[in-house]
Amino acid sequence: MTVQIFTTGGTIDKVYYDAKSEYEVGEPQIVAILDEAGVTIDYDVTRLLRKDSLDLTDEDRALIQEQVRESPCDQVLITHGTDTMVETARALQDIPGKTIVLVGSLAPARFKASDAEFNIGFALAAVQTLPPGVYVAMNGRVFDPDSVEKNRDANRFEIA
Amino acid sequence: MTVQIFTTGGTIDKVYYDAKSEYEVGEPQIVAILDEAGVTIDYDVTRLLRKDSLDLTDEDRALIQEQVRESPCDQVLITHGTDTMVETARALQDIPGKTIVLVGSLAPARFKASDAEFNIGFALAAVQTLPPGVYVAMNGRVFDPDSVEKNRDANRFEIA
Amino acid sequence: MTVQIFTTGGTIDKVYYDAKSEYEVGEPQIVAILDEAGVTIDYDVTRLLRKDSLDLTDEDRALIQEQVRESPCDQVLITHGTDTMVETARALQDIPGKTIVLVGSLAPARFKASDAEFNIGFALAAVQTLPPGVYVAMNGRVFDPDSVEKNRDANRFEIA
Amino acid sequence: MTVQIFTTGGTIDKVYYDAKSEYEVGEPQIVAILDEAGVTIDYDVTRLLRKDSLDLTDEDRALIQEQVRESPCDQVLITHGTDTMVETARALQDIPGKTIVLVGSLAPARFKASDAEFNIGFALAAVQTLPPGVYVAMNGRVFDPDSVEKNRDANRFEIA
Repeated sequence: MTVQIFTTGGTIDKVYYDAKSEYEVGEPQIVAILDEAGVTIDYDVTRLLRKDSLDLTDEDRALIQEQVRESPCDQVLITHGTDTMVETARALQDIPGKTIVLVGSLAPARFKASDAEFNIGFALAAVQTLPPGVYVAMNGRVFDPDSVEKNRDANRFEIA
Repeated sequence: MTVQIFTTGGTIDKVYYDAKSEYEVGEPQIVAILDEAGVTIDYDVTRLLRKDSLDLTDEDRALIQEQVRESPCDQVLITHGTDTMVETARALQDIPGKTIVLVGSLAPARFKASDAEFNIGFALAAVQTLPPGVYVAMNGRVFDPDSVEKNRDANRFEIA
Repeated sequence: MTVQIFTTGGTIDKVYYDAKSEYEVGEPQIVAILDEAGVTIDYDVTRLLRKDSLDLTDEDRALIQEQVRESPCDQVLITHGTDTMVETARALQDIPGKTIVLVGSLAPARFKASDAEFNIGFALAAVQTLPPGVYVAMNGRVFDPDSVEKNRDANRFEIA
Repeated sequence: MTVQIFTTGGTIDKVYYDAKSEYEVGEPQIVAILDEAGVTIDYDVTRLLRKDSLDLTDEDRALIQEQVRESPCDQVLITHGTDTMVETARALQDIPGKTIVLVGSLAPARFKASDAEFNIGFALAAVQTLPPGVYVAMNGRVFDPDSVEKNRDANRFEIA
């Protein structure tokens, strides 16, 4: 049983370029996180996109849908920016027979203090243990995409 | 639904005292890890022991058993040293109706490179999603205590 | 002998606010860095400004000048954004009798990989050992403000 | 002007092997620290020893003496365990014409919270700015080997 991992960008992968004094989305951090954690399950990482999730287009979501649908794996983990994670999750709900978990982080993985390692660990357990369906895994909870929203002021995911 | 967390010590909580040039088991690191991850589920942390797991006695295991059995929570997460984690897991298998997950780390949480945050995230998802039973959560996998062992040379958990 | 430390902002103090997807200058990180390093010399930290150095105005530089001049300390360390650090250094060159060291970092102190701790250590030695004058301490070197520039493409300080 | 760096082991380089539940001295961490800090001066790193400083023998100190004396560089930085750093410093005091700085750390460089990066930065400035002589650079201070001791209870270096 192989876990398919798709990366799409988001805060988790953000880097900092001093000259511009702004963040940009860098290389997927999940590979280094899984290595450091000594994960021994089989997984395959495919980079689909490298964007802030506010910049994802309908074409981008169609690409994610297509890739998830065509993956031979029944367990699919997607790293994603938090701002539109719920929207992408809902767009995947008509894919049958797969456990699909979306996860990201509120602080970049490159920060000393970050939820990235914890969240990836959480999502990797969720994708292996939950029944088929689409889930948002943030703040140590498994959410149903139909009843979750990001509370921007509190900077966390909550039941809508 | 509250998750009961018991801490017993182990590598995950180890600190370094220079004067003695050796590790000792320090304060439970899971509290800081859950804070940093912004976990919003209800949980209760109780410190049971603070030992290297090679030093756990029969009395220590009896204490863990008793505390798990008497907890009002159906979801119990135990942080534990890796060397005798499997032994403790087996000692809890006759407790019915609870999902019990044992987790630790192969590198101290205080290290820059550590599996601690990932593993705690993984275990927190496992304890919320798995059916009643006892599980060992290490290396990104959920193991049955009856068929897992720590491979000391490779420094990882494997199916026995 | 007390070292006077002035903080003015810059990359070293930058934080990340997810909702806005951009950096802002946060609390001075030098206090935590000196604590973690177990520094036992006497020092006094005063927060002068909290700005990206590209946003520093003539009034801001006049304030820094005035504060340095009026400090009772002969050793003055200034944390500063890198983009206009050289300009501020030159504005302090007519202050006699003080060793003034400007330092910052190319990656925020909150990053796992950052030059912040190293640079603060470097600058604290420089301010205690160099003769009176103004110095830029970056990339493990002590530079004369009259012959240094930030190479933005290479993201480092070089002899001009 | 090249800075000669000799590594001898000590807490700064300690790693943790879970199976044995004890620290051992690993690869020199100063190379990674200088890389991460973007240091652009010329330096040469030579590994002399890989020991806890309590285990250094008279032969080991003779080796360090010989290597420092024969180095073509006038600036010599030595990473060293803290327990006998002062003893080694005194053994180097009859070497003329060189600025020799000994430095280590009280917490391993591999720890999240460590004085290692700061101390290496501090020592690298000290070795470039101080007149010929032997110095102990710890806790943000430059000490004369004749009047410094490690206070083990307080875990810091102090004037003796």
